[in-house]
Amino acid sequence: MPYEIDETHDPNLESWVESANDPATDFPIQNLPLCCQLDGSFAGVGVRLGDHVVSLADCLVEAENHGFNSKFDSVGLTDPFRAATQFWSLTPGQRMMARRAVVAMLNADSPARDDISANSIEEGQVGPYIHPEPFDDEMLKVGDYTDFYASVFHATNVGSMFRPDNPLLPNYKHVPIAYHGRASTVVPSGTDIVRPIGQQAPTEDGGSPGFGPSKLFDYELEVGVVVGRGNELGTHIPIEEAEDHILGLCLLNDWSARDLQKWEYQPLGPFLAKNFATTVSPYIVTMEALAPFRTPAYERPAGDPRPLPYLTSDANTAHGGVDITLEVHIFSKQMRSKGMDPVRISKGTFKDMYWTIAQMLTHHSVNGCAMQPGDLLGSGTVSGKARDSRGCLLELTWDGDSFSDPPVLVPGTQRTPIRLPTGEERKFLADGDEVILKGYCEREGFRRIGFGECRGIVRPARQI
Amino acid sequence: MPYEIDETHDPNLESWVESANDPATDFPIQNLPLCCQLDGSFAGVGVRLGDHVVSLADCLVEAENHGFNSKFDSVGLTDPFRAATQFWSLTPGQRMMARRAVVAMLNADSPARDDISANSIEEGQVGPYIHPEPFDDEMLKVGDYTDFYASVFHATNVGSMFRPDNPLLPNYKHVPIAYHGRASTVVPSGTDIVRPIGQQAPTEDGGSPGFGPSKLFDYELEVGVVVGRGNELGTHIPIEEAEDHILGLCLLNDWSARDLQKWEYQPLGPFLAKNFATTVSPYIVTMEALAPFRTPAYERPAGDPRPLPYLTSDANTAHGGVDITLEVHIFSKQMRSKGMDPVRISKGTFKDMYWTIAQMLTHHSVNGCAMQPGDLLGSGTVSGKARDSRGCLLELTWDGDSFSDPPVLVPGTQRTPIRLPTGEERKFLADGDEVILKGYCEREGFRRIGFGECRGIVRPARQI
Repeated sequence: MPYEIDETHDPNLESWVESANDPATDFPIQNLPLCCQLDGSFAGVGVRLGDHVVSLADCLVEAENHGFNSKFDSVGLTDPFRAATQFWSLTPGQRMMARRAVVAMLNADSPARDDISANSIEEGQVGPYIHPEPFDDEMLKVGDYTDFYASVFHATNVGSMFRPDNPLLPNYKHVPIAYHGRASTVVPSGTDIVRPIGQQAPTEDGGSPGFGPSKLFDYELEVGVVVGRGNELGTHIPIEEAEDHILGLCLLNDWSARDLQKWEYQPLGPFLAKNFATTVSPYIVTMEALAPFRTPAYERPAGDPRPLPYLTSDANTAHGGVDITLEVHIFSKQMRSKGMDPVRISKGTFKDMYWTIAQMLTHHSVNGCAMQPGDLLGSGTVSGKARDSRGCLLELTWDGDSFSDPPVLVPGTQRTPIRLPTGEERKFLADGDEVILKGYCEREGFRRIGFGECRGIVRPARQI
Repeated sequence: MPYEIDETHDPNLESWVESANDPATDFPIQNLPLCCQLDGSFAGVGVRLGDHVVSLADCLVEAENHGFNSKFDSVGLTDPFRAATQFWSLTPGQRMMARRAVVAMLNADSPARDDISANSIEEGQVGPYIHPEPFDDEMLKVGDYTDFYASVFHATNVGSMFRPDNPLLPNYKHVPIAYHGRASTVVPSGTDIVRPIGQQAPTEDGGSPGFGPSKLFDYELEVGVVVGRGNELGTHIPIEEAEDHILGLCLLNDWSARDLQKWEYQPLGPFLAKNFATTVSPYIVTMEALAPFRTPAYERPAGDPRPLPYLTSDANTAHGGVDITLEVHIFSKQMRSKGMDPVRISKGTFKDMYWTIAQMLTHHSVNGCAMQPGDLLGSGTVSGKARDSRGCLLELTWDGDSFSDPPVLVPGTQRTPIRLPTGEERKFLADGDEVILKGYCEREGFRRIGFGECRGIVRPARQI
């Protein structure tokens, strides 16, 4: 694995930016996730720290002023207008160097502290290149977006609904299954999600399909993988090098209209059921920051085939997983109006995915497909073995025994609704529901780091 | 339909750019397809005319100098650096106005003729804004790429191979089926295509999949639809307005690795079998130029369901089709070395597609999906009823009776190879084969217009 644990992961490090030292923050100095702002007062890559955002380019200039001679200028990192695209293409060594420089400038004992503080020019700013407002509604433009299907628990659950005798297709344990999604509708956290309209399966064989707002509207809890360096068309990224090409991870909600999906998805896969919106969290937690939270790749049960050689490496087997705890919270309109807090409806982990992020990227490029900086890969719904670790309502409310009234997606199955603190029930999402994804990494001896939130409120379908 | 036949379609119009008057050219003054060059001596939108390319922005400036007062400046069209993005978003009325201005400047009786000729500054240039070299290897960056499946003959043929008793799935006649493709690997005509590598189905149930270069490598003849104006996220493009949002059409080769496709495509659709490369022709034949070649939408056989209301309009029924004759030519390495010409292996028409281009675009956006200027929609393989109008080798060489040796894609079917003039045979593509797509429109009383060519040579798989 290219990223090592070093002094930047020291749990005792604190920052002179006080909000970063709050034990509850997702963004201590050990995290330093990336974000971008493409216009406004600041253009370029930012680093989230506590409640603030630090300009990466300015911070690296400051580091060089303080003798941190790392040639950031030569790779375009000290030019804020270039940093957004340049940073994505760095080598792991260059990225670690940048991380160390940022930590050197922003830690509590930084020699730059007094200089920077003396330059504070506006109330609320703690330094000239530190911005008081997080860029929660900004994101880098995604080039191409691909969605995987890497949780065997999710694939088995969904397959069981559609094909009870044959839940997993024969290719699943050999091929990291994926399909292309729509890049133009990847939106940042906080964007309203209008309930999609579309065709739904006829109620009887040979009948006319229905048409109207989706009745079976769902979220999917996923992890987004942001590609850093790309590869040329006609070449591929070997498994040993795959993580060199990954910038970091974020949270991703693959909103899904199940009734549209069921009717349209054969034979070419999901289309309108998914492409109206995909929400991502605005911060990219870097692979450098995640170094302490790496785990072995998922251990395949006895009898499962080994991955083909192009998907196998010792490092991937030993450290290919990432232990991220993932939660889904629901916040209905009624809950908001009553002043309640959102309620958690599931909790799972990313470490039990059947395919690792390195395997996803290597598989994607093995045919010669060109990956580009800023490409986004969704992991597929993250579901675990336990019922409360299922990453979408389709699975969470599936096949109980206390309710059998419509809507039922799959004939012969029943749906157990989730009960909210207001007494409301949900089999699928209602208008006004806000879905909030959260993610964080914890390990004994290390500072907890978080992903922030990935939020979206379901708005009523428009008239058509 | 927004585009009318007018004086710019007069078959007697000639240009003072002599090469445009050659009866064999695809690019007479009645055509004027768009292209772009993003760097080099010329940046912006070009208009192909005979063997030359005219700068659209410069031509419109010249038109305004000659009293053609159309406020092109106010919509950004006279700035070559903005024209590429501005032109894509014009209304049909603005586009027709621009077309008339270009014809006014470039026709044989143009008042600008002497001015422009007097300004000729370099050998080979016929005017200061007319470039001698066609931009055959340039194209605008594609935002998102979606591939449809709009030929019922193709869908039935392919379905028959996989599901003899049930070739067409129940959704086909209701839903314009489509899936998202990879935008970063859409390449211009002339780009070499490296044979992809990937997993192939095990030879026996439960066995290990194979891995290596695709053995069943194919082209797919398609028409590309280039989106002009987009729509906002959460809105849709009604069928009555769909053609206002279409800039024009091009040729598209959806290269396909059938053995990869068969193993990977369930349940989420084609992925690595397609995303290594998609070739497009460099010229976008505008909807304005195609006005004389519009036909009624495909007449559905008795008993077929009517499209749902959101996919139906009187104009679409009356003029939704486009009569483009499409040809596929093959040019093997041996043919090239013997000085032979490419050989045509199929000839079909675009007018018999089950779904029209307006229906494709409206369906794509009906769920609120945001379309953007420069998005590309593939029509899906254009196949007709006749055997020699099938648009890919999978169909062309399918189910004959003289050959049954491997490779056979589908158990129980046989493949009749195509015989080339050298005596070589092809069931699928061999290394060194060049595939050349051609397209043109002909109608009594109108000048023939063409699409140019969409070419690509298959190169050997790399070592892995």
